[in-house]
Amino acid sequence: MPHTDTARLLIACDDQPGIVAAVAGVLAARGVNIVSLDQHSTEDGRFFQRTVLQVDGFAAQRPELEAALGDVAERFSMEWSLHDVARRKRVAIFVSKYDHCLMELLWRTQRGELDIDVTMVVSNHPDLAESVRTFGVPFVHIPRGAGDDAKAEMESRQLEMLQGNVDLVVLARYMQILTDDFIEQVGAPVINIHHSFLPAFIGANPYARAKDRGVKLIGATAHYATADLDEGPIIEQDVTRVTHAESAAELQRRGADVERFVLARAVKWHAEDRVIVHGRSTVIL
Amino acid sequence: MPHTDTARLLIACDDQPGIVAAVAGVLAARGVNIVSLDQHSTEDGRFFQRTVLQVDGFAAQRPELEAALGDVAERFSMEWSLHDVARRKRVAIFVSKYDHCLMELLWRTQRGELDIDVTMVVSNHPDLAESVRTFGVPFVHIPRGAGDDAKAEMESRQLEMLQGNVDLVVLARYMQILTDDFIEQVGAPVINIHHSFLPAFIGANPYARAKDRGVKLIGATAHYATADLDEGPIIEQDVTRVTHAESAAELQRRGADVERFVLARAVKWHAEDRVIVHGRSTVIL
Amino acid sequence: MPHTDTARLLIACDDQPGIVAAVAGVLAARGVNIVSLDQHSTEDGRFFQRTVLQVDGFAAQRPELEAALGDVAERFSMEWSLHDVARRKRVAIFVSKYDHCLMELLWRTQRGELDIDVTMVVSNHPDLAESVRTFGVPFVHIPRGAGDDAKAEMESRQLEMLQGNVDLVVLARYMQILTDDFIEQVGAPVINIHHSFLPAFIGANPYARAKDRGVKLIGATAHYATADLDEGPIIEQDVTRVTHAESAAELQRRGADVERFVLARAVKWHAEDRVIVHGRSTVIL
Amino acid sequence: MPHTDTARLLIACDDQPGIVAAVAGVLAARGVNIVSLDQHSTEDGRFFQRTVLQVDGFAAQRPELEAALGDVAERFSMEWSLHDVARRKRVAIFVSKYDHCLMELLWRTQRGELDIDVTMVVSNHPDLAESVRTFGVPFVHIPRGAGDDAKAEMESRQLEMLQGNVDLVVLARYMQILTDDFIEQVGAPVINIHHSFLPAFIGANPYARAKDRGVKLIGATAHYATADLDEGPIIEQDVTRVTHAESAAELQRRGADVERFVLARAVKWHAEDRVIVHGRSTVIL
Repeated sequence: MPHTDTARLLIACDDQPGIVAAVAGVLAARGVNIVSLDQHSTEDGRFFQRTVLQVDGFAAQRPELEAALGDVAERFSMEWSLHDVARRKRVAIFVSKYDHCLMELLWRTQRGELDIDVTMVVSNHPDLAESVRTFGVPFVHIPRGAGDDAKAEMESRQLEMLQGNVDLVVLARYMQILTDDFIEQVGAPVINIHHSFLPAFIGANPYARAKDRGVKLIGATAHYATADLDEGPIIEQDVTRVTHAESAAELQRRGADVERFVLARAVKWHAEDRVIVHGRSTVIL
Repeated sequence: MPHTDTARLLIACDDQPGIVAAVAGVLAARGVNIVSLDQHSTEDGRFFQRTVLQVDGFAAQRPELEAALGDVAERFSMEWSLHDVARRKRVAIFVSKYDHCLMELLWRTQRGELDIDVTMVVSNHPDLAESVRTFGVPFVHIPRGAGDDAKAEMESRQLEMLQGNVDLVVLARYMQILTDDFIEQVGAPVINIHHSFLPAFIGANPYARAKDRGVKLIGATAHYATADLDEGPIIEQDVTRVTHAESAAELQRRGADVERFVLARAVKWHAEDRVIVHGRSTVIL
Repeated sequence: MPHTDTARLLIACDDQPGIVAAVAGVLAARGVNIVSLDQHSTEDGRFFQRTVLQVDGFAAQRPELEAALGDVAERFSMEWSLHDVARRKRVAIFVSKYDHCLMELLWRTQRGELDIDVTMVVSNHPDLAESVRTFGVPFVHIPRGAGDDAKAEMESRQLEMLQGNVDLVVLARYMQILTDDFIEQVGAPVINIHHSFLPAFIGANPYARAKDRGVKLIGATAHYATADLDEGPIIEQDVTRVTHAESAAELQRRGADVERFVLARAVKWHAEDRVIVHGRSTVIL
Repeated sequence: MPHTDTARLLIACDDQPGIVAAVAGVLAARGVNIVSLDQHSTEDGRFFQRTVLQVDGFAAQRPELEAALGDVAERFSMEWSLHDVARRKRVAIFVSKYDHCLMELLWRTQRGELDIDVTMVVSNHPDLAESVRTFGVPFVHIPRGAGDDAKAEMESRQLEMLQGNVDLVVLARYMQILTDDFIEQVGAPVINIHHSFLPAFIGANPYARAKDRGVKLIGATAHYATADLDEGPIIEQDVTRVTHAESAAELQRRGADVERFVLARAVKWHAEDRVIVHGRSTVIL
């Protein structure tokens, strides 16, 4: 898909007759071509639409197009946003010591498989500095100090770096729990990757406890982080089959492979404006 | 989803600006509500759209709606069709001696999971008569006689029963190869289920040959039957993992499970007007 | 595999040198052929072995073979059991109103894919009587009465029918919770099938709650029932991929398909003496 | 698993009574502990066994142990080999321009997930030199010259480097077809990774042709290369689900992810002496 003069229009409103016609009418009147249109109506009466548009001279046309869309949006009480595909999302990746998710994201970005700009990697440990800088990406070490205020100070320094500078924060096995304050103030969505099993094992040493229960599948879940860390809207999940012959350490390695791919897919879909949050769930268009 | 007053509109035409707006405009002008809309544009410039509509008093409104759609269709050189969801597709299932795919379809239909009417089961063997009649479905035994004309005669008798009476023919492990003539004359699409492996094994005893090559996956492919039987547009595929410890007979049983589910999904999607053929491929909307 | 004169030997003991040699020596000395041998040593030092044996004139040889094995077992402090493959396990299936798991088990047994004898189906509802009797299997309706003692009375009647008469109880979506007393007294292992998700949803309406969280995978877990119902050793698990476009009701149907296959595999492995319980987990040999 | 004093014993012979007892007897007599034992008998009467052994002072004990095993081997006409786990297999990786499989192998080796020594990467193109040397691995550029003898000369130079120096050659999307002579003379097994689809598409542009047929799954197969390149014994296979909405280029990217993981698993299993070739198939123990 050529990126020049391509935009993505996201719409959310209460379901009602005439939405598609009204929006498509505005676009057709301005000679805008619909490259693709996906929509979904939920059982509780909410309507979502993602439309990819080809707009000749998008930069020049944008103000007029936004004005026209604004009129329609008001009529239907829509939330909406228009994204220039040529403007890549700026992404900060948070890590601690595990590198598998980080490397997968850097590698795919370098190969052109993830249409994002990784503008910085932030870590509370210095270990991964060299691996990151090899990719020409800045590595920022913000350690957690001692004392009661250590976490607040660390988050304060992180927020200074992030606010206004990033469109997305990815927690790539970052081992600190973010405070609710941080999530509210960072000004960008936060994607987290979480190991997950059937049944779920909450707390420490999940792989050892999964091994203890003899699970036959291990998996991972990528979700938006919210105040309640493991409970945000789910973006993507996957599993892999394991057997009794694999040790807890091997389960962890197998789980790492699933985490890499699940997180890479979630970031890709977010970067392509495919993920719409609806209450505690997501619609992937 | 309530079926009363619900219709599905399928559209195919060359991709061009204004299609969505024109169709949505016609619908909005008549107070028709769009329940869902899925579309896809191919890289070679073809446009496909499936729209589920809520039309108050559909039977009465239909002629006027069709006239209005016909005008738009002419303008954009569209192929189009409008399907009344309340009118279930009439399906004939062809079998020989294997019953696993047949039973799966009858069972799911009985449980309300497949929105079809199985109007007859046709077989060249009498073996499955009782199993079929238990479901209250007519079983028609049309054996293949001897002599040069046996196949032509058998197909001639089959065509008499089918023409005008069915909307879909499903080959549920029917072990006779249909002639091109039959497929052209039957007047309904034909769905076939085919074992398939990685790599593919064409010809007799595929499971024994797959075993001989030590395959680690076995699978199945549901496709529309065309003149060239195993080569029609693919509707659905799936695989399951196997090991060296399983005999060729066990591979066949494992394959049968995959066939059951793959065929059931393909028939369900076809029954819901989700499958659009584009050249040798399909678009599933 | 021919069943005549075939036996399965299961062994569990603390891991130590010489076990394999000692057992194989006893067998070789009696001209017993090892058809297959699978073993597993756990990280916590426990040894498990499943051996399939060809024993000419097994019935006649059995006492002497057992005496010889008993000597070895004593030396290594083994738990062990010897199973005649020709003697199918007698199975009671418990159901309530859902029939999908029940039908899958009856169907596969009838087709020779499950090497068990279903000796009775027990239900607290009369609904599935006809479906069961079609397969020539007795259906026993034991309703739950009113009053404080209703459950105890129901279980008491169930135990009367089961004790000594069955080798396995399968809960095929039986919607009553078994008491600890029942599980202890029934004298046979109990296999249960449980919906499962990532993350887990405990309690009522799991599919509605999974839909609410936007899960991308739904699954099922077959496990041995113990005092704490959902927490017994896991035998088998599987998942299927779902999307936001599927309603909670559709998720439930998709989940039912996974449940059918997962339970069928768990029963098959148990019937073939492949499942060994080790603490809270299982070893599948 | 600790590697010191650990060995793997592989055995293949015609199936016959007494094999397990004889081998286990030899081991027990020398105080060798069996860590794990996996065996498989094929339907055509061939017996395979993989045994992991703990041998105190393996280096010193080895000659005597081999002599004792040799006696048993002669009695049963066994092929056998004994592998010191502490001695990692020396691996040469062949590449052309695609780097995804190469990077996956180098990365996993660096992280300790693949127990191999990558002693060199050989390529007919210079492009990947820097990526390889970053890992501290020698990169050898052996271009294909012009003229009728170009291929023979290239292979001759490759053979000089490899013979006696490597235990395994991995073709990580190497785009030249090896000659039968090369495979016979290289003196080490060769593992290849091959895209594969349902159905299989042989020849040029497989992803474009798969797209053209509307395949719903794409996959990869890792196999030993033999004279007939795409037809060697299969080690591992996997697939991923795709839709009509993905372009041929996207299918290729999705296929690359499957190739990475399938090849990594195949190399891991080979490195752990788990893969035994039996005719045109493999047994994975």
